[in-house]
Amino acid sequence: METKNYHMTPEQFRIEGKKVIDWIADYYENIEKYPVLSQVKPGEIQASLPLSAPQTGEPFARMMQDIDSKILPGITHWQSPNFYAYFPSNTSFPSILGDLISSGLGVQGMIWATSPVATELETRVLDWLADMMGMPEKFKSTSTGGGVIQDTASTSALTAVIAARERATGFRSNEKGIEKKLTAYISTQTHSSIEKAIKIAGIGRDNLRLIDVDEKFSMRPEQLKKQIQEDKAAGFTPFFICAAIGTTSSNAIDPIAKIGEIAQNENCWLHIDAAMSGTAMLCPEYRHYIKGVELADSYCFNPHKWMFTNFDCDVFWVADREELINSFSILPEYLRNQATESGQVFDYRDWHVQLGRRFRSLKLWFVIRHYGVEGLQFHIRKHIALAQKFTAWVNHSDDFEIFAEPPFNLVCFRHKTGDDFNMQLMNMVNETGKAYFTHTKLNGQVVLRMSIGQTHTEEKHVKATWDLIKKMAKKL
Amino acid sequence: METKNYHMTPEQFRIEGKKVIDWIADYYENIEKYPVLSQVKPGEIQASLPLSAPQTGEPFARMMQDIDSKILPGITHWQSPNFYAYFPSNTSFPSILGDLISSGLGVQGMIWATSPVATELETRVLDWLADMMGMPEKFKSTSTGGGVIQDTASTSALTAVIAARERATGFRSNEKGIEKKLTAYISTQTHSSIEKAIKIAGIGRDNLRLIDVDEKFSMRPEQLKKQIQEDKAAGFTPFFICAAIGTTSSNAIDPIAKIGEIAQNENCWLHIDAAMSGTAMLCPEYRHYIKGVELADSYCFNPHKWMFTNFDCDVFWVADREELINSFSILPEYLRNQATESGQVFDYRDWHVQLGRRFRSLKLWFVIRHYGVEGLQFHIRKHIALAQKFTAWVNHSDDFEIFAEPPFNLVCFRHKTGDDFNMQLMNMVNETGKAYFTHTKLNGQVVLRMSIGQTHTEEKHVKATWDLIKKMAKKL
Repeated sequence: METKNYHMTPEQFRIEGKKVIDWIADYYENIEKYPVLSQVKPGEIQASLPLSAPQTGEPFARMMQDIDSKILPGITHWQSPNFYAYFPSNTSFPSILGDLISSGLGVQGMIWATSPVATELETRVLDWLADMMGMPEKFKSTSTGGGVIQDTASTSALTAVIAARERATGFRSNEKGIEKKLTAYISTQTHSSIEKAIKIAGIGRDNLRLIDVDEKFSMRPEQLKKQIQEDKAAGFTPFFICAAIGTTSSNAIDPIAKIGEIAQNENCWLHIDAAMSGTAMLCPEYRHYIKGVELADSYCFNPHKWMFTNFDCDVFWVADREELINSFSILPEYLRNQATESGQVFDYRDWHVQLGRRFRSLKLWFVIRHYGVEGLQFHIRKHIALAQKFTAWVNHSDDFEIFAEPPFNLVCFRHKTGDDFNMQLMNMVNETGKAYFTHTKLNGQVVLRMSIGQTHTEEKHVKATWDLIKKMAKKL
Repeated sequence: METKNYHMTPEQFRIEGKKVIDWIADYYENIEKYPVLSQVKPGEIQASLPLSAPQTGEPFARMMQDIDSKILPGITHWQSPNFYAYFPSNTSFPSILGDLISSGLGVQGMIWATSPVATELETRVLDWLADMMGMPEKFKSTSTGGGVIQDTASTSALTAVIAARERATGFRSNEKGIEKKLTAYISTQTHSSIEKAIKIAGIGRDNLRLIDVDEKFSMRPEQLKKQIQEDKAAGFTPFFICAAIGTTSSNAIDPIAKIGEIAQNENCWLHIDAAMSGTAMLCPEYRHYIKGVELADSYCFNPHKWMFTNFDCDVFWVADREELINSFSILPEYLRNQATESGQVFDYRDWHVQLGRRFRSLKLWFVIRHYGVEGLQFHIRKHIALAQKFTAWVNHSDDFEIFAEPPFNLVCFRHKTGDDFNMQLMNMVNETGKAYFTHTKLNGQVVLRMSIGQTHTEEKHVKATWDLIKKMAKKL
């Protein structure tokens, strides 16, 4: 006798699931037909949705109809080959399938015992990646360090700040609160997530020093050194430095080796934020940018940005896992188990803020195995080559100029006319729906950003966008 | 001319994706054949994995073979109907498909402008849920509050602690660091995530007061009041209280109305953690447990625990969204946009720690629409009825006793013989692979926990597990 229930059966799931797979394939085949930037107005989507939940269940087909009629109009198509805004948040079919299996298995990887493979695959894949990027041995689990998947670089930054805070206070802040006057250091170009982490950690933004940058928007190490000396003289305890490989505004690269030396001498935790650009280290020809990385305490980059892995997947490596674990460890009775007490396993809940965790290494494993090292290198080099082509076009135009030579895949450029003109130009292009890019300010000037890194972006897309930008500029 | 690339094509995705759908359906049809608790030893999975990444790409079929041969043995099957450990982390086919579409769309919902529907659907669905659970109007976006999806209850706790810290310091801590001697309050039974949040926020564990509980393991409000008075007399500023609806160890329920009154009088932020048990509020007959919730400042529960929605999906409601936003807001130039500056939209990056965010409301929307309110109520009532049956069986046995009468779906019981016997019994049952449950300690005694809430758990499963427990106890 069947027991009454409201569940979708495995048979229904086979039917509906295959339709969803086809829907996604169709979506990618037709993605260029949608306006890249959603054209809806605030409140428009909400107005199309019922005010309350249905009392009785609805057929799955109705949800799929709503995906087309109500959801798609409100989507800004990050996976469009004509998406050049913010940063790439690219994905790939193998990643989507790896994540689907993770959803299907529905396991919790909070500690080793709750699903051993969720921990052990993650550890191994992050060791693979460390080797793939030329990271020093100390960041591998086989040495003193290891990697853990975090949701975002913001969370990695917070994790690094907390571990740094604890090390600098002899692991007393966790117990006593913050008794020392701690100071942290970033450049004026560093991502806002570090400021957010400093605030959350109770350090206070007033104790975050923004170090001046050079003409390439890289941190000036001599200014860093000077500021640290001044702070020490004023009774502060410098504890944390964040250096960027590829700032958000302009993809600037801080001088890691020089900053690392200062960090070592001053006993500061050095965190390297390579969220967007770290993927370039898959290619040996770019590794000179991370020279000195062996002086870092932690390092993060986001496969969910530029490595064909869907959000969320931020890789956080630490040089000394004991310092990290001592900063985050908890062991209530209801989580005690033999494996933990044997000391032979990693319990990743002690490597970050959250307790619960998804089996995220599956999608990363699928991506690395599907593309292989050479496939990943091929696509990264291709994106960088496209950025160089775009740069050449801008350099050869009379009306536009390059603002900073791009080391990787982000081109900062502007029309020579001025700030308002650039903002209007950007909005005009975006409103066509044919491409989407965003702006920033550098040296107080509006600068346009072409971030080239979506999975299916080819030269024809970049060329068409450049033509569109020129056309709109003429019109304006 | 085809441009060279290493991507999986949409056509391949159709083929492989449908195989993955079938694989998941097969998995659920066969899930009872696997040992619930993975039987691997530490390091066993890693030993089966290559030491380095493949140089060239591999066929997808090989990954799927490895899922069977290498991944499944290391899985503890949280979706098995015989999983009674920790907490349910149940999922459902509609949720898996909603999440699959989210992976396929691959959008970033960090601000309204980056994909308006990711924000507006989330806001609406959490308003639906507020109504579905009888939450006061103030927690809805149409009033002063609103909901946001966080990854876990740990992150919600941290978010609440930070907002509370800022309110208590006139929003100065974010700028100056923590200048006041702040104190926070939980019961001795409150989940470890609050302690973790207090440490991260720079408050210090020594300033977290553990309030004594009554014979039902609920916080004693008179003790809370007394402790707050003592702290104030000693120069501390009480700022935060967390009350639990369903503690992790024993599902105890703190007296919300009395605690809320104290929180109001003492100007403390009241956060309610209903992570596991909050789902019961779908059924009006349990809402007396949250009487007084209108006195709370924030409230969280996890659809990814007991509401058929796959991880991660924690719902965090706040009564005054301005306090939350003022605590977390950042606005660097590269995120400026017209919609944000119009003040007409929510930018959810200002509602939590992370910046980047996945389109998680899709899966929740699918779950609510597939089951309808009545379907969700049916299954929650069924789980609670199963817990009551199990309780009756234990009460009728000579050798076992109930430790605390279960209000919901968690049964705490023990064999009368003693702690060692109970631990051995638990390990014996778990090693059979036929069921998996865990323990805690209450009043210093080992207590066994039967957490009944997996999607496909029926009476026959609970009965078979009870029979197995009795059989093993006889054997021991």
